Amino acid sequence: MAGGSTRWQGRSVISKAVALLDAFGPSTPELSLGDLARITGLPVSTTYRLATELVEWGGLERAGSGTGYRIGVRLWELGVLAPRGATLREVALPHMQDLYQATRENVHLAVLDGREALYLDTIAGRGAVPVRSRRGGRLPLHATGVGKVLLAHAPESLLHEILDAGLRRYTAHTVVAPGHLRRALAETRRTGIAYAREEMSLGSQSVASPVTGSDGTVVAALAVVLRSGRGDLRRLGPAVRTAAIAASRSLQERERLAGPLAVRHSR
Amino acid sequence: MAGGSTRWQGRSVISKAVALLDAFGPSTPELSLGDLARITGLPVSTTYRLATELVEWGGLERAGSGTGYRIGVRLWELGVLAPRGATLREVALPHMQDLYQATRENVHLAVLDGREALYLDTIAGRGAVPVRSRRGGRLPLHATGVGKVLLAHAPESLLHEILDAGLRRYTAHTVVAPGHLRRALAETRRTGIAYAREEMSLGSQSVASPVTGSDGTVVAALAVVLRSGRGDLRRLGPAVRTAAIAASRSLQERERLAGPLAVRHSR
Repeated sequence: MAGGSTRWQGRSVISKAVALLDAFGPSTPELSLGDLARITGLPVSTTYRLATELVEWGGLERAGSGTGYRIGVRLWELGVLAPRGATLREVALPHMQDLYQATRENVHLAVLDGREALYLDTIAGRGAVPVRSRRGGRLPLHATGVGKVLLAHAPESLLHEILDAGLRRYTAHTVVAPGHLRRALAETRRTGIAYAREEMSLGSQSVASPVTGSDGTVVAALAVVLRSGRGDLRRLGPAVRTAAIAASRSLQERERLAGPLAVRHSR
Repeated sequence: MAGGSTRWQGRSVISKAVALLDAFGPSTPELSLGDLARITGLPVSTTYRLATELVEWGGLERAGSGTGYRIGVRLWELGVLAPRGATLREVALPHMQDLYQATRENVHLAVLDGREALYLDTIAGRGAVPVRSRRGGRLPLHATGVGKVLLAHAPESLLHEILDAGLRRYTAHTVVAPGHLRRALAETRRTGIAYAREEMSLGSQSVASPVTGSDGTVVAALAVVLRSGRGDLRRLGPAVRTAAIAASRSLQERERLAGPLAVRHSR
């Protein structure tokens, strides 16, 4: 905790408050004051003061059990306003369902957030391979099909950041050589399809394709994830590409009414 | 703007940042820096500094058009973790669909947030009355069916706050006498059903019932909203009550696995 105080010296109040919010996740939906202080490294007194302000606002709630904090409905209410969240998911969902019906495999929709792929929604195939992605979950860009699609169409500066940080190896098949990754991304830009073969998890492979807005910006990636060895992954490429093109058309129609969903990359 | 600076004197940084977030709403999904300064009353320089920090975090995004800010996917990601948001909606949705199928009228799910009813989801009936509530929208407690249900089961202190603030009249039928409201709330507690007859909008009426968690706390209200004059509103009471009881049972099963969804009212 003492080390934590040093870590936070000179940092803004906002950065402390968002660290508190960021402590919550799919596996930590409810946290005690002590948990929050430990995870953020903030002093308990600061943690309490910030949590109290966030509870007053409604961004956090005291859980019914009385011992913990959790994300409040005010954040849910704001979150559904995110055009690249609820709106994009709503536009893409019918096309994800079409793809599921045609393949009976897991179908995923993801967007770029920071240096990761953020999963907006997943349809789980019955008897399909168990997958590590879930709604609101995150996976690395270089080791997943959706990630490669998003990285292939992101500003070059993002690729540099990711290469500088080093490509983490998840399995023996993860692409960790920068040259290999660059070639895969160039191929994805050329064909509109990305493959990932047991690069994130053994036994699981994926094929992904970009969803494009009216200004030509790639705003999301659509993918099918299936068990390794279920035939040739390439045979699913055209199906995923077709669904992604259909989702792009729906998105572009929506954008004519409601404005572009693309995010401006100013970093 | 100068008046705004005075208004904000002595207020915390967190309260300024959340004022920035609160400026966004269903009718204002994208705002320029000038809009944000005007709505919050903060100086442009402060607004810019806070917005930049929120963009770095991901809670705000620069819109694709390059001129505005909007809610970012990081807030969507946190929002879906709200147990009284996404989880409650997921549990209640099948029962809302049953109720829609049985009545073909608008079906609503709402929770208490602050002094208002916050709508988690709505199913719009084909040819049903156009309604003023929408997903993520808010309506007053004393003039809606769901609001009366939530108020009837809230701590007495909330009723006092609402009466102290004065009951706003929306139509000639809005209940504005404290004694009338108290009697309606007592009746709702006794029967498990609340009615609102053209109290929010002329031509529209609703019948609502509580969704109860495993500890007996009312966590949400389920309602049917229909055009006035479509027969006796009371005939729909048992249907709404039945769906609300079924949703309560599903919720209680979910709570046995994931903990209580009730919020602790410490105010």
